[in-house]
Amino acid sequence: MKIAIAGAGAMGCRFGYMLSEAGNEVTLIDQWEDHVKIIKKDGLSVNVDGKETKVGLPVYLPSELENQQLDIDLVILFTKALQLANMLQAIQPILNKSTNVLCLLNGIGHEETVERYVPRENIFIGNTMWTAGIEGPGKVKLFGSGNVELQNLLPEGKETALEIVHLLSEAGLNAKYSDHVLHSIYRKACVNGTLNGLCTILDGNIATIGNTSVAEHMIRTIVDEFADVAEKEGVTLDREAVISQIKATFDPNGIGKHYPSMYQDLILNNRLTEIDYINGAIVRKGKKYGIDTPYCAFLTELVHCKEEMLGAK
Amino acid sequence: MKIAIAGAGAMGCRFGYMLSEAGNEVTLIDQWEDHVKIIKKDGLSVNVDGKETKVGLPVYLPSELENQQLDIDLVILFTKALQLANMLQAIQPILNKSTNVLCLLNGIGHEETVERYVPRENIFIGNTMWTAGIEGPGKVKLFGSGNVELQNLLPEGKETALEIVHLLSEAGLNAKYSDHVLHSIYRKACVNGTLNGLCTILDGNIATIGNTSVAEHMIRTIVDEFADVAEKEGVTLDREAVISQIKATFDPNGIGKHYPSMYQDLILNNRLTEIDYINGAIVRKGKKYGIDTPYCAFLTELVHCKEEMLGAK
Repeated sequence: MKIAIAGAGAMGCRFGYMLSEAGNEVTLIDQWEDHVKIIKKDGLSVNVDGKETKVGLPVYLPSELENQQLDIDLVILFTKALQLANMLQAIQPILNKSTNVLCLLNGIGHEETVERYVPRENIFIGNTMWTAGIEGPGKVKLFGSGNVELQNLLPEGKETALEIVHLLSEAGLNAKYSDHVLHSIYRKACVNGTLNGLCTILDGNIATIGNTSVAEHMIRTIVDEFADVAEKEGVTLDREAVISQIKATFDPNGIGKHYPSMYQDLILNNRLTEIDYINGAIVRKGKKYGIDTPYCAFLTELVHCKEEMLGAK
Repeated sequence: MKIAIAGAGAMGCRFGYMLSEAGNEVTLIDQWEDHVKIIKKDGLSVNVDGKETKVGLPVYLPSELENQQLDIDLVILFTKALQLANMLQAIQPILNKSTNVLCLLNGIGHEETVERYVPRENIFIGNTMWTAGIEGPGKVKLFGSGNVELQNLLPEGKETALEIVHLLSEAGLNAKYSDHVLHSIYRKACVNGTLNGLCTILDGNIATIGNTSVAEHMIRTIVDEFADVAEKEGVTLDREAVISQIKATFDPNGIGKHYPSMYQDLILNNRLTEIDYINGAIVRKGKKYGIDTPYCAFLTELVHCKEEMLGAK
């Protein structure tokens, strides 16, 4: 199958690499110029659980797609949230009427953006627990295991969704069909919606902040806001289970010493965060449904304040 | 008049020095051992608008008051909020039935603490816009000008309040009687309740944070919470006037480059903050009156989180 990875960062490269190894024709698309240049010249360097390998894959900047006839069957979207609309605009030349588009970005509500560029019957949304890291331009590190859940946006898309599940699982990506993928998406966003923002504004790691006496009330209030909004979208979050999942990350001997991805984006790499698609999405949906979400609103503003203070881009 | 300054930090020393210069018998009380030791040995060093001077004043640690017969007419409370109850306990031996107690601490609701130790008819509350700095143990710096507003807690105390006003003004402290001092107290606390906490948790100065695009909405929401609670206590805050007063501090050529006192306490000096007597007081009073105060609640928690992260004392 002809697959394009739109947004070939760490996760996009993982999916691209594994799908290519399974015999698919994979094309990478990314806006990071050095990254694209090195993959074009030397191929993509992949460290898989400590073992170095290299794979040659066609790769394009979004701006290079204009005259391409790639005839893509499936696009997997893996951009940063803020780059999604631009990427969808740029990939228009490589989409045809039957190109399917699977959106695997973190966060809530991306399908509303995808719908502006892709017919609804071709859209699939999902959630993945795989991880990966970028070691430098053209170089990714793959470790651990994960899974993918996905679902068609319209009921008639179920058969195609099952084909995509099969395709991903054949490549070892451990995919399954979900008839309620929004639940996983909300749950993951809710977990991300607590410590990501708190660690970023307070400049601390997960354990340091999670183990303060005030953490539980803040987390509980934020989880309640997510759950109240999710309920209006037909998703019932088990609040106690989510809180337990969050608390399990506080162990300083586990991942507690780590800094969440939002911290890495803003504090370490001076990049704009995805807060508008996590807590900020809850605020927008809360307004729509008449639900107060003051903790999510304040946290979103505090993160934006920090972004502006640091001149993030 | 025999006056004791309970809490002889920068502001306490200013009042003590000026009242002493005006001919009163002033005694200082403070818990900072080095400070007390140096004043005992060498007197208090005072830099008044650049001019160095020195004044000998009796000074005690709170623990040294047990067997003192000081026969104090007026106690002026100038402790940090967190030390108020301990100080009131310690000064019991020097209070008699007619000792008046004037509370000039920053923040809201201190009279509730004072009432546990002092008859209500002897309590006076006030607000001051004077400033001062500590340059080291035994050494303070006085600059700029200011004023004091004060009021009796019970109606029958007005005559005494006017006497205290006269006493302070004779010493150049520019005091005036207010029949609505709670308004000034709330207004000052409201101004402090915005940038103090925000600068502390986000690690920025007033201009940096005040001039972000999100600052105004955060400030406006916090001011609304203060004003809603104040209304229940018979105080009408002019929300737009308070917001204008806050915005006037953002000018980087004015005081915008400064870090608020809460930032200095926690980030620079690793001390616990007074957040519980500013935003935290609004949360407590909000609960009592059935008013939601989520921004004040979250900000109070974030400051406490930062205190715990830094091991502040």
